[in-house]
Amino acid sequence: MSKGQKLYKKAKKIIPGGNQLLSKRPEMFLPNLWPSYYKKSKGIKVWDLNGKCYKDFSIMSIGQCPLGYAYKEINDSVKNAIDRGSTSTLNSYEEFLLAEKLISIHKGMDSVRFSKTGGEACAIAVRVARAYTNRSIIVASGYFGWHDWYLASNLKKGSLDKLLLPGLEPKGVPKELLGTCVTVDYGNTEQLKKVFKKYGKRIAAFIVEPQRNRTMNYEFLNEARKLTKKINSVLIYCEVSSGFRINTGGLYTNHKIIPDIVTLGKALGNGFPISAIMGNKDIMSAVQDSFISSSYWTERTGYVAGLKVIEVFQKRNIPKYLKKIGIYFDKKFTSMCNDLKINFKNRGLISVPIINYNSGDQLLDRRIKTYITQEMLKKNYLVSNVLYLSNAHNKKNIDDYFYEMHNLLFKIKNDLNHEFLIKKIKDEVCHSDFKRLT
Amino acid sequence: MSKGQKLYKKAKKIIPGGNQLLSKRPEMFLPNLWPSYYKKSKGIKVWDLNGKCYKDFSIMSIGQCPLGYAYKEINDSVKNAIDRGSTSTLNSYEEFLLAEKLISIHKGMDSVRFSKTGGEACAIAVRVARAYTNRSIIVASGYFGWHDWYLASNLKKGSLDKLLLPGLEPKGVPKELLGTCVTVDYGNTEQLKKVFKKYGKRIAAFIVEPQRNRTMNYEFLNEARKLTKKINSVLIYCEVSSGFRINTGGLYTNHKIIPDIVTLGKALGNGFPISAIMGNKDIMSAVQDSFISSSYWTERTGYVAGLKVIEVFQKRNIPKYLKKIGIYFDKKFTSMCNDLKINFKNRGLISVPIINYNSGDQLLDRRIKTYITQEMLKKNYLVSNVLYLSNAHNKKNIDDYFYEMHNLLFKIKNDLNHEFLIKKIKDEVCHSDFKRLT
Repeated sequence: MSKGQKLYKKAKKIIPGGNQLLSKRPEMFLPNLWPSYYKKSKGIKVWDLNGKCYKDFSIMSIGQCPLGYAYKEINDSVKNAIDRGSTSTLNSYEEFLLAEKLISIHKGMDSVRFSKTGGEACAIAVRVARAYTNRSIIVASGYFGWHDWYLASNLKKGSLDKLLLPGLEPKGVPKELLGTCVTVDYGNTEQLKKVFKKYGKRIAAFIVEPQRNRTMNYEFLNEARKLTKKINSVLIYCEVSSGFRINTGGLYTNHKIIPDIVTLGKALGNGFPISAIMGNKDIMSAVQDSFISSSYWTERTGYVAGLKVIEVFQKRNIPKYLKKIGIYFDKKFTSMCNDLKINFKNRGLISVPIINYNSGDQLLDRRIKTYITQEMLKKNYLVSNVLYLSNAHNKKNIDDYFYEMHNLLFKIKNDLNHEFLIKKIKDEVCHSDFKRLT
Repeated sequence: MSKGQKLYKKAKKIIPGGNQLLSKRPEMFLPNLWPSYYKKSKGIKVWDLNGKCYKDFSIMSIGQCPLGYAYKEINDSVKNAIDRGSTSTLNSYEEFLLAEKLISIHKGMDSVRFSKTGGEACAIAVRVARAYTNRSIIVASGYFGWHDWYLASNLKKGSLDKLLLPGLEPKGVPKELLGTCVTVDYGNTEQLKKVFKKYGKRIAAFIVEPQRNRTMNYEFLNEARKLTKKINSVLIYCEVSSGFRINTGGLYTNHKIIPDIVTLGKALGNGFPISAIMGNKDIMSAVQDSFISSSYWTERTGYVAGLKVIEVFQKRNIPKYLKKIGIYFDKKFTSMCNDLKINFKNRGLISVPIINYNSGDQLLDRRIKTYITQEMLKKNYLVSNVLYLSNAHNKKNIDDYFYEMHNLLFKIKNDLNHEFLIKKIKDEVCHSDFKRLT
């Protein structure tokens, strides 16, 4: 057993769930065989506890690092900030600079607050919307973290099944919140209209991830904008995941619709904790009628990282590169699938390929994913069905990746069935159902 | 006007409230005159944007830095962690090491989760308690941050007035949560008993800061332990503020009572964001029936900082030093007050002096505080009525501080009245009322 797996088994005894993030649990990739822990990361390379080096063609720290791991300019800025003291009784002036910078690149936004995690950012956005409207109900479409306001939607059994993970229990969320969060499927304009008709002026906000997959549903978002405006409720775009994937900051700026509040997280710090809540002043000033305050939000390194990420994104035109490399990946992927007559589909954002195995059987899909992960790990690749491309991915390492993928799929393309895969998968199939992780 | 004040005026236009933490707002110290922002911090020294250097005899980043600012060993570890990559798709092994270490120094705790901020840690503890008991009501005594579960107590007007800031509006907290959080004054055993009698088995948890001031009320805590145990509800100690002030980790370990869950934050990272939720396995395993997950909780630097803080605390016996220097400060303070026949009192923890001006008039107290802050700032001291002592405070700099304080108070000891102070205070009096900050 690898050092990483040994450690993970010990960790599960003292850390309930094994770690702090579902998406990084070894069971999500390759139960009992995933390397689990890293010593070092740089670019797309990750070294495990045995010193073995992998190339990351998977979640790249769940999208936190569009510049690649340990990007020199970001690291240098952060280390310099640490030398100057990561905190003090006085405030970090970089907090102001980052607020100013974010406003300059986000049309419609002239007011900013910060926190450390994406979940906090969404909870603050919701607090602001509720304070501004003096209403309780939040309509939600997408994934917005672990807080009570959001999981409350699952107090009505099954509401999050299509949005999140089937069977997710909202245990510990007070039952009093039943009915305060109503979910809508992305793109279902009719359902959205019905919900707005039903709850009307009881709705504080509609929070939505404007684009998770390849195509943005403009009609849906346009309707959302109209419906919220009509009853003076707040339109919140959560760009914690989509921010810095299509352009510098939120992708909404490429489109006509202007939301009232936008949240950013993840990529904003390229691996250093920072999240932002941007909005228009009228609405954001509701912050001041509430109490939203936390001591570690004042810490310096996140602000410094955020400023440098934006600077690098702009001066190197990273969005252009991510698009180029995403198109290149997609071309290679499509060509491979055509060559091998395999029906896999890429449905993610250009720079975030999400592979559908399209077997028509969820368990079979998971077995295919598990087997590919298992075999590619032997070739020193971290692989999943989701890949966050980065500035450290290039034609050379994508070619290398497809060379191995092609070889593998060529061998098994006629054997993508339960019987074969059960025989070949050395341990458990990867998890996707929340219940199985407990 | 100083560069810091100029910047703060600009910040207030784009950051509602001006910054991310109430306790670091310039208005809490010296409205329109406080230096507001820092360039550099080291030990107890803080340099403002004009390059002026102050000695911090105030909140030391609200207690985050018991080792002093930019402590070399912590900074070196964190910078090394950054060189090795602050994140990756695989997990940080230091997460496990910190969990293991925390368990080894906290009796009764054998299970740990982590987050980034103190507010998150308390919200997770509450989620766990609610999941474990399948009940909603939280009884609270102390300060626990900005989350809905806690501010809900103020939906019943005035409940937090004695605990937090008078007039704090719970705007944006859904009214549906009315009655889910009930407050009790620290030390009021009769009130606690009544609350437990009234709500009985509807109570999920009692959350309390075990000690904020000089004396711990053992009888109160003992009764809390009995009452919670009797109805199988959860006793949570929030040691986000008290942790690492009296010993390495939570101060509860010096006493007989063992809570079910303990939260740590602030000092655990000595200026780098990290917070922890420790508990006994039976109760903590309720985490797995809920969804508690956030991507930036996996980030490496917080774990590395936490490990090094504990190592330094143990090898240098920092708690012993903090106590020694706290006693020295108190002796000098008492002797100064006696000399000058001033009725100020120190009522804080040994290493966290909190000065009561004891004028019997809250506004006069604030004027005294404001004037002292104003005058000491001229002598290059950051001063407040609260002082978090640190490893960087010593007899020499405490002597220097009291030399200036003595001089100042000698001059004005007979003039501590409204008339004199109104004349002498150059700008507004410092804020203490939440409403005034909006």
